[in-house]
Amino acid sequence: MTVSQPAFNASNSIIVRLNIDNKIGMLASVTQTISEMHGVVGAIDLVQPEAGVLVRDISIFTHDPNHSDQIVTAIKNLPGVEFINFSDRTFLIHLGGKICIQNRIPVKTRDDLSMAYTPGVARICMDIYEDPEDAYKLTIKGNTVAVISDGTAVLGLGDIGPKAAMPVMEGKAMLFKEFANIDAWPICLDTTDTEEIIRTVKAIAPGFGAINLEDISAPRCFEIEKRLLVLDIPVFHDDQHGTAVVTTAALINALKFVNKKAEDIKVVVSGAGAAGTACSKMILQLGVKNLIGCDSKGAIHPKRNDLNSSKRWFADSTNPNHNSGTLKDVIAGADVFVGVSAPNVINQEDVKCMGKDPIVFAMSNPDPEISPDEALPVVAVMATGRSDYPNQINNVLCFPGIFRGALDCQASTINEEMKLATAHAIAGTVKESHLCADYIIPSVFDSSVAPKIAKAVRDAAIKTGVARRIKG
Amino acid sequence: MTVSQPAFNASNSIIVRLNIDNKIGMLASVTQTISEMHGVVGAIDLVQPEAGVLVRDISIFTHDPNHSDQIVTAIKNLPGVEFINFSDRTFLIHLGGKICIQNRIPVKTRDDLSMAYTPGVARICMDIYEDPEDAYKLTIKGNTVAVISDGTAVLGLGDIGPKAAMPVMEGKAMLFKEFANIDAWPICLDTTDTEEIIRTVKAIAPGFGAINLEDISAPRCFEIEKRLLVLDIPVFHDDQHGTAVVTTAALINALKFVNKKAEDIKVVVSGAGAAGTACSKMILQLGVKNLIGCDSKGAIHPKRNDLNSSKRWFADSTNPNHNSGTLKDVIAGADVFVGVSAPNVINQEDVKCMGKDPIVFAMSNPDPEISPDEALPVVAVMATGRSDYPNQINNVLCFPGIFRGALDCQASTINEEMKLATAHAIAGTVKESHLCADYIIPSVFDSSVAPKIAKAVRDAAIKTGVARRIKG
Repeated sequence: MTVSQPAFNASNSIIVRLNIDNKIGMLASVTQTISEMHGVVGAIDLVQPEAGVLVRDISIFTHDPNHSDQIVTAIKNLPGVEFINFSDRTFLIHLGGKICIQNRIPVKTRDDLSMAYTPGVARICMDIYEDPEDAYKLTIKGNTVAVISDGTAVLGLGDIGPKAAMPVMEGKAMLFKEFANIDAWPICLDTTDTEEIIRTVKAIAPGFGAINLEDISAPRCFEIEKRLLVLDIPVFHDDQHGTAVVTTAALINALKFVNKKAEDIKVVVSGAGAAGTACSKMILQLGVKNLIGCDSKGAIHPKRNDLNSSKRWFADSTNPNHNSGTLKDVIAGADVFVGVSAPNVINQEDVKCMGKDPIVFAMSNPDPEISPDEALPVVAVMATGRSDYPNQINNVLCFPGIFRGALDCQASTINEEMKLATAHAIAGTVKESHLCADYIIPSVFDSSVAPKIAKAVRDAAIKTGVARRIKG
Repeated sequence: MTVSQPAFNASNSIIVRLNIDNKIGMLASVTQTISEMHGVVGAIDLVQPEAGVLVRDISIFTHDPNHSDQIVTAIKNLPGVEFINFSDRTFLIHLGGKICIQNRIPVKTRDDLSMAYTPGVARICMDIYEDPEDAYKLTIKGNTVAVISDGTAVLGLGDIGPKAAMPVMEGKAMLFKEFANIDAWPICLDTTDTEEIIRTVKAIAPGFGAINLEDISAPRCFEIEKRLLVLDIPVFHDDQHGTAVVTTAALINALKFVNKKAEDIKVVVSGAGAAGTACSKMILQLGVKNLIGCDSKGAIHPKRNDLNSSKRWFADSTNPNHNSGTLKDVIAGADVFVGVSAPNVINQEDVKCMGKDPIVFAMSNPDPEISPDEALPVVAVMATGRSDYPNQINNVLCFPGIFRGALDCQASTINEEMKLATAHAIAGTVKESHLCADYIIPSVFDSSVAPKIAKAVRDAAIKTGVARRIKG
């Protein structure tokens, strides 16, 4: 496990094309140079053998674009090697976008056209006109999610606008398809006005079976989601609830591992934004009594007079002992730390002050609230948002399955029971006999997760009366 | 050519499943019954042979759903035949909708995920943030069209609402894919308010390369399209311009066939709605001097005081001799009749009063302004909107190619020059040596049409300075 510097990953890999003199030792000198520059050689392809020269493509994993540049410069200086060009694999895969449409039936003949389009389609239209619920059966509505963003809170990049947000929303659509066979379409909005966003989502809703709000900044995301609950299809802000569901799943298993009960523990949550609020609400539903939320000024308690509406919720509904002070004050004696805030807000000394067998979820991305290097020696269980450590808290574990379940039963909403059912389903995919400090949460590539969630969500929807379709 | 009753087509075909006694002559009695009821037997499949009984599926082409019911009843009355069930092929192909999403690259491994999604996607986002035009290259924008309808003027069905409009918009998306490899997504709006529609389209525009407005009723469609021209991507109301382009293409070839010049002819247009206005505007661009528009009250001329703004355009820009009177009055001596209005507004006598070699385009659907039975004996050239006569004026000939051309050069708009180039490209696909009364316009399945249009449109866009991308 590399912890001292950023991990290599394919997203920073490049492919260099070189003319290399066809002499013994030449290829070795190239690969050695790459290694000396701390790059990792991947595939080596022979593109074309020419007289005395071999044209080769070499894939190189690097740390970041600067590192790529340094390696390219080093290669250019090698005698007997002519540099032709290099390509960036991440840019290459994005050319032309990442998703496309496919026709589910052919339109090659006049007969095809007469059924899929005019005149036959008119009978389908009139059927839906007479019973609008038939849209679930006879149109794409039953399997379709709109992924909607205004581009104001994209990854860790902030307000980059709708066009720059598109690659993330396309990526999200890909994950919907890959993990749950859902057809999701990205819609990035040229407005950041709360009312305008609400109006737009309402206007485009008829053709979709559900709405995934994505990367919309707080506090607007709360108002937008709340006001859209009037729609008769689920509206789910993944940054809030996806994170909350997966965090809760991880907490269920971590508590099992350290053999503590939700009722008895003290939880400190760092970050009172969209994710922090949603996480706290779900953690309370597990039965936790003592949860303290902290913002950059410290514990949130009723006597503070600088609270916005979502922080007011913390003051009213958490911190039963009205603790005040900094994050470092209130973390003392805590059983669980949940960080959805900023890098390096706690250190090893803080963790040492926590209760026995401390559980630390440090999910700030890419730099956690405490570096795993510091935390790992003193925690019982640690989770982060990163893929290069064990126990990655990743929304990908939640959203494909929860939407699959909601669509399968044509749910009108995704309610608290459905979210809690999701958390338990995710936690349940880790067998008790397999449970250990490094494995409290399944891998995002565990293909059993989404179907298990879908079933649990569907059952919860039917039980709570929000499913239109009861039969399987 | 069946003209006495509605043609058979696959859109009214059914599949009946029967248990038929395994005796000589039994199948023949079934097919004979179907024929006696004027149904047409298609495929016959043996589903399962059982003891003394054969389970068969028989496809039957019928005229309409009532006809299907009559045939089913007749089959049920046959001795030795047990009726199991029947299915409607058009409903069958609509189950689950007609389009879906496909991932263009795999997301099977951690490396895939790190490039298509986090963390790699962040570099793509930042590239687009720095140069928003890169969205054309690195997202789906460059190949994507939004098909937008409010469901107020769907086919001949009228205001059936957004959900019931979805099957048509999905069908349209299929045609975009099939004929031009464009990824189109249907968006049906839960509002009919002009301002709300304009706001919504503006809001969702960033992720799309072009907007296809569809089945929005007049006069709102004019205002909506006009106000959306401020967008930096093409906005094209297909019901107006698609029809106009294909009609103009047909007129170009029809005039060639009868050897007349646009400058010399008199054209009468019946229908002053969205399509009639757009057709008239394009026909004027061919150089026609004498065009008279008619609404249900007759010729539109400056002295009428019952004109809305689009009819005012007719009064101001057409009818140079200020002719008044009914449609039947002004059609006398006309060289061309263009009908985009209502069934049976003219008869054979009216056509006989037209000039030499009359050209009649009767495009009201499904029942034309004059039935081909009546018209064909007395016209030089006839075209309709129907597939069961020669010379079908079908928008499918226009929209895939014109959007392909606009996307290929990242056009900011679709201007008059691009539309006219499309009409000439469509007309040009019919070789002069092949030109005849029954073949003035290519088949919708002629795969050479869309690429020819795309090239002509791209050239016109570059020439008129509305192309962002000049290189091929």
